[in-house]
Amino acid sequence: MSPVLSSVQPLRRALALALRLGTNAQTGSGYAAAENRRFCPAVSSGVAPLRASSRRYSSGTAPLIRQLFESESCTYTYLLADTETREAVLVDPVLETIDRDLKLLQELELNLKVAVNTHCHADHITSTGLMKRRLFGLKSAISKFSGASADILLSEGDKIAFGKHYLSVRETPGHTDGCVTLVLGDESMAFTGDCLLIRGCGRTDFQQGCAKRLFNSVHQKIFTLPEHCLVYPAHDYKGQTVSTVGEERKFNPRLTKSLEEFVNIMNNLNLAKPAKIDIAVPANLVCGLHEV
Amino acid sequence: MSPVLSSVQPLRRALALALRLGTNAQTGSGYAAAENRRFCPAVSSGVAPLRASSRRYSSGTAPLIRQLFESESCTYTYLLADTETREAVLVDPVLETIDRDLKLLQELELNLKVAVNTHCHADHITSTGLMKRRLFGLKSAISKFSGASADILLSEGDKIAFGKHYLSVRETPGHTDGCVTLVLGDESMAFTGDCLLIRGCGRTDFQQGCAKRLFNSVHQKIFTLPEHCLVYPAHDYKGQTVSTVGEERKFNPRLTKSLEEFVNIMNNLNLAKPAKIDIAVPANLVCGLHEV
Repeated sequence: MSPVLSSVQPLRRALALALRLGTNAQTGSGYAAAENRRFCPAVSSGVAPLRASSRRYSSGTAPLIRQLFESESCTYTYLLADTETREAVLVDPVLETIDRDLKLLQELELNLKVAVNTHCHADHITSTGLMKRRLFGLKSAISKFSGASADILLSEGDKIAFGKHYLSVRETPGHTDGCVTLVLGDESMAFTGDCLLIRGCGRTDFQQGCAKRLFNSVHQKIFTLPEHCLVYPAHDYKGQTVSTVGEERKFNPRLTKSLEEFVNIMNNLNLAKPAKIDIAVPANLVCGLHEV
Repeated sequence: MSPVLSSVQPLRRALALALRLGTNAQTGSGYAAAENRRFCPAVSSGVAPLRASSRRYSSGTAPLIRQLFESESCTYTYLLADTETREAVLVDPVLETIDRDLKLLQELELNLKVAVNTHCHADHITSTGLMKRRLFGLKSAISKFSGASADILLSEGDKIAFGKHYLSVRETPGHTDGCVTLVLGDESMAFTGDCLLIRGCGRTDFQQGCAKRLFNSVHQKIFTLPEHCLVYPAHDYKGQTVSTVGEERKFNPRLTKSLEEFVNIMNNLNLAKPAKIDIAVPANLVCGLHEV
């Protein structure tokens, strides 16, 4: 397991949280640990409930975050970094904008540790593979259920650490089998990939898509986050940049419906096949390159 | 002067700044502080404020902010609101996205007081005129040097108030005579219009453009803001969403040059005439409508 990933055992985790040393704790790993995390609610919840007293986090130590947009596929890439250690994570980087993103990393003097995809994209090619060739030590990451190869195969409850911060992995299948939502340690923001979009959601008509699974993922793994948690999706097609869990619970035109109505909506979207799917999916199964 | 405009006397302002010192000291400076302000849920969520004793700025007193994008002209519209009084200001709204913006205002239960343009745009038509027809009591605002009509004609130092917050007007001509930069009261963010863009600046080859004036505007009115002050421009063509004063001071490829070099760069851009200029400018002189 990569040193940037840490899974924390319950007792140690509780102690670490109390001492606010949690993110760097390094314990169990591998399949057994992943299964433990999945079946033990206390562990799989990922982070502690937000309490005002525990939010020393935001007093000057919040991570740097930059939202970046790729206009052809309307993809948002997110750069997160610890402003002290300069360790950074990049979420859903796109091949076409690799130079922009590398330049920004350089200007901000950041050390990119992990480039993670929220799932195996069908509409664009990821830059993680090419970026690994340009940045020494960079690790790629994606869900172990994506079918894709990467340095780090993510499971429920895994933590992607960058400096004192971490992103916690919540498995949110439905758009694809291997979709994850990445939640910042204090649950102040969630990177929802194609699972939950602003006033929308990802399609479920290809790549193992399943409307019922997506519905359950959103309701069980995203709508259970605090209402003020910012929702940062992988795409937006209307110029919207951010939402909140509270807003989506209230205004999402699909996810506010019953499961039955939702499935009916999703099964009748009649969307065109993504233009790049036959190129993008095979490429993204190997970090955007035919050899990683 | 409109009731939404208030001039803050020097003594009162000094007192306000002094009272704010505690918060600034706690949040530190540089990227972390700037990013804290932007991305703390209380800043941009519009829902229940986060109670964090260590960050008074974000404990229910920071404004809600939403960045919205119009893809044809690559324009950013900004929605700012007081989360308690629900009073809001909209910066640079675009005609094509008026329905999206009105819907968001309605969903977030905001009372839009002022729709302000940072200048008389040449590349798109403003929605302020049409929005005034849809929202009772809404006032339009633009620089008194823009040549455009509006309910409020802005001058240096004017304040556009929304609840307990305000935007302070800094005249930053150069792209046009009537360009302003709007600075949030605590100087944590600046809406720079077409004066300063991310790693760029507005063109100066039409509409009273003057490279020397733009250079001086940026150096005297924007680069004098705190380095962690977030820079929100009216446009971006590369998918960048935000920068900081510190970054632009260091990395802006034009504004880091000498005045002479800058003028030379700007006089040799050889840009095509904006496609919509002959329609947009006359329309924007009357809030986007031929009769307001």
